[in-house]
Amino acid sequence: MAHLPPPTLESCRALDAADPLAPLRAQFRLPPDLIYLDGNSLGAMPQAAASQVQRALEQEWGQGLIRSWNDAGWIHRAQAVGDAIAPLVGAGAGELTVADSTSINLHKVLWAAMALGQQRAPQRQVLLTERDNFPTDRYIAQGLCDQFGWTIREVAPIPASAERPVPQELLDALAAPDVGLLLLTHVNYRTGAMHDMAALNRLAHAAGVITVWDLAHSTGAVPVNLKEPGAEADFAVGCGYKFLNGGPGAPAFVWVHPGHVNAVEQPLRGWFGHAAPFEFDAGYRPAAGIARYTCGTPPILSLTALQAGVQTLGAASPWGGMAALRAKSLSLTRTFIAASAATARAHGLQLVTPMEDSRRGSQVSWGCGPQAPDGYTVMRALIARGVVGDFRASPRPGEPDILRFGFAPLYNTHVEAWDAAQALGEELQRASSARAAGAALVARSAVT
Amino acid sequence: MAHLPPPTLESCRALDAADPLAPLRAQFRLPPDLIYLDGNSLGAMPQAAASQVQRALEQEWGQGLIRSWNDAGWIHRAQAVGDAIAPLVGAGAGELTVADSTSINLHKVLWAAMALGQQRAPQRQVLLTERDNFPTDRYIAQGLCDQFGWTIREVAPIPASAERPVPQELLDALAAPDVGLLLLTHVNYRTGAMHDMAALNRLAHAAGVITVWDLAHSTGAVPVNLKEPGAEADFAVGCGYKFLNGGPGAPAFVWVHPGHVNAVEQPLRGWFGHAAPFEFDAGYRPAAGIARYTCGTPPILSLTALQAGVQTLGAASPWGGMAALRAKSLSLTRTFIAASAATARAHGLQLVTPMEDSRRGSQVSWGCGPQAPDGYTVMRALIARGVVGDFRASPRPGEPDILRFGFAPLYNTHVEAWDAAQALGEELQRASSARAAGAALVARSAVT
Repeated sequence: MAHLPPPTLESCRALDAADPLAPLRAQFRLPPDLIYLDGNSLGAMPQAAASQVQRALEQEWGQGLIRSWNDAGWIHRAQAVGDAIAPLVGAGAGELTVADSTSINLHKVLWAAMALGQQRAPQRQVLLTERDNFPTDRYIAQGLCDQFGWTIREVAPIPASAERPVPQELLDALAAPDVGLLLLTHVNYRTGAMHDMAALNRLAHAAGVITVWDLAHSTGAVPVNLKEPGAEADFAVGCGYKFLNGGPGAPAFVWVHPGHVNAVEQPLRGWFGHAAPFEFDAGYRPAAGIARYTCGTPPILSLTALQAGVQTLGAASPWGGMAALRAKSLSLTRTFIAASAATARAHGLQLVTPMEDSRRGSQVSWGCGPQAPDGYTVMRALIARGVVGDFRASPRPGEPDILRFGFAPLYNTHVEAWDAAQALGEELQRASSARAAGAALVARSAVT
Repeated sequence: MAHLPPPTLESCRALDAADPLAPLRAQFRLPPDLIYLDGNSLGAMPQAAASQVQRALEQEWGQGLIRSWNDAGWIHRAQAVGDAIAPLVGAGAGELTVADSTSINLHKVLWAAMALGQQRAPQRQVLLTERDNFPTDRYIAQGLCDQFGWTIREVAPIPASAERPVPQELLDALAAPDVGLLLLTHVNYRTGAMHDMAALNRLAHAAGVITVWDLAHSTGAVPVNLKEPGAEADFAVGCGYKFLNGGPGAPAFVWVHPGHVNAVEQPLRGWFGHAAPFEFDAGYRPAAGIARYTCGTPPILSLTALQAGVQTLGAASPWGGMAALRAKSLSLTRTFIAASAATARAHGLQLVTPMEDSRRGSQVSWGCGPQAPDGYTVMRALIARGVVGDFRASPRPGEPDILRFGFAPLYNTHVEAWDAAQALGEELQRASSARAAGAALVARSAVT
């Protein structure tokens, strides 16, 4: 990619003109004059969300009232949305359901995975994960390790390369005989770097290790195959409000390999996860299959918006679905990297997102080291002029603050990538000039 | 009450005409020609819910996008709704928050209460509860007892009376030296019987027992004072979609006594419960106060509907708020009991809801024993003719199936109570006649 000619406004227009998915943008209600590159944090609103939530309010709740649990299918809606998400991650119908939040679902599956691990190999009591996992994943993991008497072991892998798809640190760590569980986020929230899920599932299973995947930054943006033959995952959770465009705080999803979904329970024993919720049994009997991973009554309005979001994604099916979305996503991130690289590097920024397509999710992250202008100031200026990405402060000394730009293949365009790159260049220039002027002022003050 | 003259349609009209809360019904969008007596299961839709959720969709999500976390106050919305609910249950501002479901909040507070119990009196490892608690409460309690190595002890109390406000079985059970925790639902979901919360808090604390209250069938319908001087509760959870009219599957609330909210953690360590969620700390530090009881990102659309529901309840404030709502609720249930009693008893039904005002929540339950017509058939017929209550099958042999009629003082009327009682009488008569005809047919068949 480094050798490709840099894009031009004209080449971006040509890419958009040739984009078979371009008409899908009209499914979203995007503000005019805004370049929205934060769909990796909160996806844009599908037109269908407004109309379907309105119907859930007015007809289903307002007129149907309690009868809508049956008549409008509320009782089956979470599973219906789960069945619509399933093919996006290579899961079968009835294997994946929607419930609660990503954090809570992660708590359920980690608990279950540790219980399964205890059954299979009780001497393995280490949960292996990455240092730069999303914090909530680490909090949940640490809490459960404390409960189970396990130890959390964090590696800080040097990014992999196309030649070596699994970082050496992970390879080494997986070989330890005390590791029972591998928890990874498929696409890293800070860097956008993507793990080779199949390779890691294969290696983990060969080593006797159970795998748990957080698909928050993958689902709806990159193809995922949880059941790749010979490299199947064990547990996974994912987020409804990023690339699934399910709305703020949309419920999350949970998947468990059908081979062991019934082998263990999960710890949150609510009535919706009971084998027969409306028999009001005295004793808890977990439902068979993934339904046991539900707990309380689902938030129907938020769930309905997620249903609309997932349906909207389905509009890409005639052009190849996830494969077409992935191709466009790569084209968008490639364009943005190529269009912003020269200026960004000239101002001391470093690309923390992998250049290789095979290792890049659907975002581009520029790191602001000590030589770069202040990243927070730059992102605020970009947002003020209508280019919305976000800023993530450095998690520890010596590592860069990050400017994140997410690309949603359903609605972003190559011209937006181009325009955003120009805006970034201008704001970097402005911030550098301001800093230079400030430094000159300080220097003058020191002399006088 | 048994000696009051039975109501008439005219007396009911007079009560409605004199009802200061009558105008509040116009705040709801109720279907025409429907008598909705299931607000104890799913409250009706406030007009404000439709407009506020619409705004959350179109303006906040659609136009504001990620910026709405700050600009529209999404980040503070759960706590804002919690602060609006707090005075309904006698809690202070900042002591109660909204998150997840009732089941999940109960899991959090029971875990915390057991952890607190272990600190205070490690030899007390029995969780005391009622046999007829709502099933999800028992499933959650049993699951945590298994985890903590505690034992669950269920009593089947004979209903209390005005002279003896706490059932003898509970008194006796609380005296056992191994009881650490008392979990009760304030108003029983089947019978509508209400516990004397203050008396039980006092007795439990005198015995060294921590109290946990489920307020699902209380909040918004009966006054609750979690901080009654000398009789304060320890933990409480409650439901958003019943008398708070928050919409299907609305998020639930959680309250912890400020005296020990910081003494223990809860087990679901999500980033929203972190002391500084957006610093993306490597380690988990629980927030101070009730914020530590949140977990993942809240479902904003469902939360917004709940906010509208709670605001709608606030419209009763000029007439005395909860006290006025309670007076009307009692008047409605009293009217329905008096109007339906003679016919119901003539058909073999028994009143399982207490007659004494002080022990009755906001619903009336008629039990269908072996002499009564089939309750399910009767309730289906009632719903088909536009009188919506619900049916709860007997949880065990020898106990009656139940016909439940919930009364929401914000929107139900005395004439509705009257009309529902007439409809119940007619459907009981129809079902009895059909049964008699069936029996005669069977007898004739046996002869011929």
